Amino acid sequence: MSTNLLWQSTGSSTDEAIMRFLAGEDVVLDRELLPFDIEASRAHVAGLARIDIVSADEAAALDAALAELAGEVEAGRFLLDARFEDGHSAIEAWLTDRLGDIGRKVHTGRSRNDQVLVASRLWLKARLADLAGLCRGSARVCLDRAGAEADIVMPGYTHLQRAVVSSAAHWWAGYAEAFIDNAWRARQALEWIDANPLGTAAGYGVNLPLDREHTTQALGFARMQVNPHYAQLSRGKFELAALEALSQALLDVRRLAWDLSLFASAEFGFVELPEVWTTGSSIMPNKRNPDVVELLRARYGVVAGARAEIEQVLALPSGYHRDLQFTKAPLIRALHQGLEALALVPRLLADLGWNRERMAAAIEPSMYATDLAVELARDGVPFREAYRQVKDALGGLAGRDPAGSLAARISPGAAGDLRLDLIEQRMRLP
Amino acid sequence: MSTNLLWQSTGSSTDEAIMRFLAGEDVVLDRELLPFDIEASRAHVAGLARIDIVSADEAAALDAALAELAGEVEAGRFLLDARFEDGHSAIEAWLTDRLGDIGRKVHTGRSRNDQVLVASRLWLKARLADLAGLCRGSARVCLDRAGAEADIVMPGYTHLQRAVVSSAAHWWAGYAEAFIDNAWRARQALEWIDANPLGTAAGYGVNLPLDREHTTQALGFARMQVNPHYAQLSRGKFELAALEALSQALLDVRRLAWDLSLFASAEFGFVELPEVWTTGSSIMPNKRNPDVVELLRARYGVVAGARAEIEQVLALPSGYHRDLQFTKAPLIRALHQGLEALALVPRLLADLGWNRERMAAAIEPSMYATDLAVELARDGVPFREAYRQVKDALGGLAGRDPAGSLAARISPGAAGDLRLDLIEQRMRLP
Amino acid sequence: MSTNLLWQSTGSSTDEAIMRFLAGEDVVLDRELLPFDIEASRAHVAGLARIDIVSADEAAALDAALAELAGEVEAGRFLLDARFEDGHSAIEAWLTDRLGDIGRKVHTGRSRNDQVLVASRLWLKARLADLAGLCRGSARVCLDRAGAEADIVMPGYTHLQRAVVSSAAHWWAGYAEAFIDNAWRARQALEWIDANPLGTAAGYGVNLPLDREHTTQALGFARMQVNPHYAQLSRGKFELAALEALSQALLDVRRLAWDLSLFASAEFGFVELPEVWTTGSSIMPNKRNPDVVELLRARYGVVAGARAEIEQVLALPSGYHRDLQFTKAPLIRALHQGLEALALVPRLLADLGWNRERMAAAIEPSMYATDLAVELARDGVPFREAYRQVKDALGGLAGRDPAGSLAARISPGAAGDLRLDLIEQRMRLP
Amino acid sequence: MSTNLLWQSTGSSTDEAIMRFLAGEDVVLDRELLPFDIEASRAHVAGLARIDIVSADEAAALDAALAELAGEVEAGRFLLDARFEDGHSAIEAWLTDRLGDIGRKVHTGRSRNDQVLVASRLWLKARLADLAGLCRGSARVCLDRAGAEADIVMPGYTHLQRAVVSSAAHWWAGYAEAFIDNAWRARQALEWIDANPLGTAAGYGVNLPLDREHTTQALGFARMQVNPHYAQLSRGKFELAALEALSQALLDVRRLAWDLSLFASAEFGFVELPEVWTTGSSIMPNKRNPDVVELLRARYGVVAGARAEIEQVLALPSGYHRDLQFTKAPLIRALHQGLEALALVPRLLADLGWNRERMAAAIEPSMYATDLAVELARDGVPFREAYRQVKDALGGLAGRDPAGSLAARISPGAAGDLRLDLIEQRMRLP
Repeated sequence: MSTNLLWQSTGSSTDEAIMRFLAGEDVVLDRELLPFDIEASRAHVAGLARIDIVSADEAAALDAALAELAGEVEAGRFLLDARFEDGHSAIEAWLTDRLGDIGRKVHTGRSRNDQVLVASRLWLKARLADLAGLCRGSARVCLDRAGAEADIVMPGYTHLQRAVVSSAAHWWAGYAEAFIDNAWRARQALEWIDANPLGTAAGYGVNLPLDREHTTQALGFARMQVNPHYAQLSRGKFELAALEALSQALLDVRRLAWDLSLFASAEFGFVELPEVWTTGSSIMPNKRNPDVVELLRARYGVVAGARAEIEQVLALPSGYHRDLQFTKAPLIRALHQGLEALALVPRLLADLGWNRERMAAAIEPSMYATDLAVELARDGVPFREAYRQVKDALGGLAGRDPAGSLAARISPGAAGDLRLDLIEQRMRLP
Repeated sequence: MSTNLLWQSTGSSTDEAIMRFLAGEDVVLDRELLPFDIEASRAHVAGLARIDIVSADEAAALDAALAELAGEVEAGRFLLDARFEDGHSAIEAWLTDRLGDIGRKVHTGRSRNDQVLVASRLWLKARLADLAGLCRGSARVCLDRAGAEADIVMPGYTHLQRAVVSSAAHWWAGYAEAFIDNAWRARQALEWIDANPLGTAAGYGVNLPLDREHTTQALGFARMQVNPHYAQLSRGKFELAALEALSQALLDVRRLAWDLSLFASAEFGFVELPEVWTTGSSIMPNKRNPDVVELLRARYGVVAGARAEIEQVLALPSGYHRDLQFTKAPLIRALHQGLEALALVPRLLADLGWNRERMAAAIEPSMYATDLAVELARDGVPFREAYRQVKDALGGLAGRDPAGSLAARISPGAAGDLRLDLIEQRMRLP
Repeated sequence: MSTNLLWQSTGSSTDEAIMRFLAGEDVVLDRELLPFDIEASRAHVAGLARIDIVSADEAAALDAALAELAGEVEAGRFLLDARFEDGHSAIEAWLTDRLGDIGRKVHTGRSRNDQVLVASRLWLKARLADLAGLCRGSARVCLDRAGAEADIVMPGYTHLQRAVVSSAAHWWAGYAEAFIDNAWRARQALEWIDANPLGTAAGYGVNLPLDREHTTQALGFARMQVNPHYAQLSRGKFELAALEALSQALLDVRRLAWDLSLFASAEFGFVELPEVWTTGSSIMPNKRNPDVVELLRARYGVVAGARAEIEQVLALPSGYHRDLQFTKAPLIRALHQGLEALALVPRLLADLGWNRERMAAAIEPSMYATDLAVELARDGVPFREAYRQVKDALGGLAGRDPAGSLAARISPGAAGDLRLDLIEQRMRLP
Repeated sequence: MSTNLLWQSTGSSTDEAIMRFLAGEDVVLDRELLPFDIEASRAHVAGLARIDIVSADEAAALDAALAELAGEVEAGRFLLDARFEDGHSAIEAWLTDRLGDIGRKVHTGRSRNDQVLVASRLWLKARLADLAGLCRGSARVCLDRAGAEADIVMPGYTHLQRAVVSSAAHWWAGYAEAFIDNAWRARQALEWIDANPLGTAAGYGVNLPLDREHTTQALGFARMQVNPHYAQLSRGKFELAALEALSQALLDVRRLAWDLSLFASAEFGFVELPEVWTTGSSIMPNKRNPDVVELLRARYGVVAGARAEIEQVLALPSGYHRDLQFTKAPLIRALHQGLEALALVPRLLADLGWNRERMAAAIEPSMYATDLAVELARDGVPFREAYRQVKDALGGLAGRDPAGSLAARISPGAAGDLRLDLIEQRMRLP
């Protein structure tokens, strides 16, 4: 089985280098989308049957052949490769190979334009669901450890300077709340793009009463993307929306990894990473390096780069342009690599061991100064005045201890009143 | 009235150039935030009264003084300038100037950290509401014109090549649906950040039972941002979320402006912009240039730049760092300039006049080829076969006309069945 | 032949998912660098021999084995794949496999840090030389056509509005000068990074009197990168410098492709691209689309994305961090794809055919207005006054013709005095 | 004195909001460019006199009036504000106000297009010279301290893990070499853009034999930018080239600031910043924060953002478009803020005090492991074998001391053989 270019006249001239440039890595990228392209093709066939463009028998034959192809793809027996121009051609070639003229009917009423739109829309929805799940997974570990580690003392920093006494629980709870919001953001993005573009053809619809309500329902979309012109306008935009949701989660991974990178230094010494999370040096036999943490920190760059790449491409008038093909590679690369990183986070967090002694030893008397200043203010000394009094007499703080400071930190959400129930409650939202 | 630096010891050394570097343009930027800072300060004072940190009389005095300041600011009689380190200092200076020691109590239990967080959160919410409103304004014009212009023929392009017959209504409806989604996106962003950070102090809370439920309600937040560590983690992130929503809308403005820039060329000649939307040339007396359209097209860059600026800054460990101050300027700049551009769009769209003759004259017989191919397919010729038949005999299309082609374009959403009711329905959503 | 991780203790624990995350696509990327890594290894061995760390016999054996490996790699018989951690490990495994303990000496006095630095530096130099060559290739075509097409009339646009009469030669000469400057920029970047990092080990040098002058000369570097700390600081920075040079060239490709995309539209109709440069549509039999031009236009995004990706990673303290590994993929991707695009440009430009009739037909009388205004000014009417006179009487321009306008455009560099000799002269610079 | 819009017909309609949108902040930005615009106007007048467009007397009068304006601007007595559309209009208004019709002749043979190009080119050249100078200033301090601090022990880190013994001198020398290269880069960019665009009018030249050789020489340009089309193509591109040079320098500032931020933490404790470089906290009386260092670290974002902003705008066909006006604000902002940051660096570096005890105390015996491994390798043990031996017996390193380790680090450029003369030599290059 092989395929001619769909649009090629017999005997027209082509050129090797140009064809290679046009093809790019498209066929390889389409491996990601192929299962969704097949799924959407099945819905399209059912829709064609409902408006009598294909007969019930033809529809059944096409559906069976598509189901078979889906199985072959899933089993790894069908490989999309350079024999085909892209995934769409592969599907049509498969059908024609098996069903002859009937196979040639599958493309009636659609264009490669709405075909790739619907396949990538379905793929995006799946990836955003993954993103939400992975964020919730991280949040779960954080919240559990917050619940268990209220008495583990940790210095609280601002400007990397020791500021006040804090706790491991407080640090965990912060990331828990962050990842819950990141999951919510993924859901928002999913809802925003949950619209069916199948049936918009090349951006102008077709002269057939396509049953778009049926394909919308069959493919599990929340609604129809009504206007074909809009379906084209949304190319790249919806992809950016997904990457924006991903990048929010990775911003927190970056800060988390930064924390751990510092905490794993000899100078801080707050965490010791299990050996499985570290690597050695090729020249320095004495080293164990937190490479995984560093690569997690760096992963944000992949998503930032992908967004920059896509938004450069979108400086176009309306209507389809081949430029838009170049949104596919950065999209798939960023989601693949971003989700891969997020998938490691829950285990890393679960494996993390604190060096309680080092953390406790990092508490200095001056870190009670704010406590005292607020106490004075509570007792009627204007805060600015209290601030100056304490600043001039940091010596009087020696008698205090971390546990007392934490217990008194009772503003809602702070270490003395963590309100984990409120965070847990948001965890339960869809 | 003037102000010392809040944290300055008497007699400590400062340096002109360094102080200027530290101050940057902060005081000027704080003019944007000042009304919201005052509003949040009033809520904070009420909260302090509820936990007896200030008496009812003191609270009343502070509230009255803050209300007076708000009035002065609104009337343009109080100007934030280089007399003050920032807006926070200005508020405290105002209160101390009027109320002496009582004024000094306003900062009890808060830090400039949560103070700027809450003020900028309120400001962001207001801007996102503006964004939603402006997007709906554009959508309204588009939808109305879509309803009125179903019979205005317009060539449909892909790759800037004439492809099929289309209509002005179809073009308008696409942008209508786009701007409705952009408004929804602004709402999503608003909901996502609608959490109160006031009461988280410098990222670790305080040793006071602050009534955060009260301030949350008083300031109209949907919920409390529970964990103080998270409040810090969200700095920059929430700002990015707002800019992402803005940039989605400006992506559509960019494509719209690109369309108009092309349509206004002599070669297309589809629109003539009213003179008020054009300017002349300093050397070429014959020119009228669509400068407004071009500047609208370019505005996206401001937002893309601001996002790049902020995300560079966010490569930090957790906890506050002064780096984060640099998120303020790009945020305010991008929202100000982005909303300014969006505010012009509805009028521009309403003013737009079509040159129907030029648009109709751009329809060529070959643009009916797809219609014919689909007709053949509908009649049982496999689509690939139909495609080849039509391709080999483009000549047989001469008898067709645009109106017939549009009327037959009946796939849901297309020019023959625009489904404006479905779009209108989504317009009515909150 | 297989390889253990260089830094692995016997029996230490590893984890499949973590190892995969650490490895990433590194081994595949190293295929690009491997020939340069071998070349630098040979220089390193020679250097070790010069300070008696390896004997002359050992050096000869190592050099022969490395030469053999280079041959195998070039012939495609040695494939870097997942058997190896990276290219460095593969080289050492090859040598140890052939030479036993002698092979194990190759890593003396170096780290994978300076090893990858020197290999990628050599690779970068080769790519920048390619870039310069490709830019000169485009400039050559442009300059030749500028020389031949002085009498082909083309409308000159500003704001996409017809402004004045111009010529194809003038358009070509502009791109010629641009690509000459782009070639120069590539040379500047090449010179800037032309410094040898080999011998700086992991950023702190080693306790051996390495003969860095020898390796510098042997590898063809212009100078030594002196300080080992600086060698680390330059990671990512030098890569960015190369991408910046590349992006300057692609900015001109983008504008060129934009011109051609417009010129190829039915509305402009100035060029007809040979069929080999266009593709068909899967649904519209009537279409020939300028896909190659559109993909050339979009290519800039790949480089912009790669730069954004790398600069996100570089937010680090000094010293090596594993984050820096993530500069490799975007670097190689962007240079590969950017150079691939540039390689197509000269042929595309050579193939370009003008539709002289359409271009001539686009000249309107009002496009002589500036000519007349300047004539009046030359004759003593103040320019502002002349401008107003002409503006009020555009009618008096009917008698003029394009050839006359072009001939009179004699400011140096303009269509009437192209000064191609000056551009040609800069073409001859190194 | 006031001004009408140059291109405005009497009685034509304008609109307040649109005019404000068109004007933007242009007039304020033009304050930066005005002195250069005046300088270029004087050269243009002299050029017009040489081709007899203005008489010698007229030229003298125009030159005197321009010189007077330059003096007024420099003295701060002439302020560019909203009375004027832009700087160009202000100059013409000034001349017309003083010289009547003669003033109106200044614009003969030029467009606002080449006028703003030449003014911003001259401004850019001045800023790049500043950049080179500031980089050399930082390099000077670094090199001097490297020369003085060879015996100050500092731990050498990779992955933020203690790796080997190093020295302050080694750290300084790294930044010295980096800033020398950054100065060179600034010079390269300056040379690349050192071409005169004056005389290219609106991108198509004019029908006058302008003496461009004269203006090129008079304005101190290295060469003429020959082709008018190219002058337009270079808009934005040359600006990006300048920002790329700036961003290279700021990448090193960012890493330097990161180092100092870590070194200033209690955990590292390597530096104590003089009080003038730190600030206090509004809530925590115990804190001194390294705010200046943090803002220096964050400054890179401004340049990255400006570049992203400009490159978004440049997605255009050739010829001038109003979009390009939006390159001005990010350019000026980034250079102003970037140079401001760089201007602080030399003093900060000179003020830096080391805490030698803390640095020495951070040296652990295992940090000699690499020394020992290399010694074994030098004595004939294959390096991989030596690595394993040392790794298994880190205990045997106790007798070593930092001074011995540094003295033995004799690979060229390393702490035992710093080769500062080589770095100093490159300092002397232009």
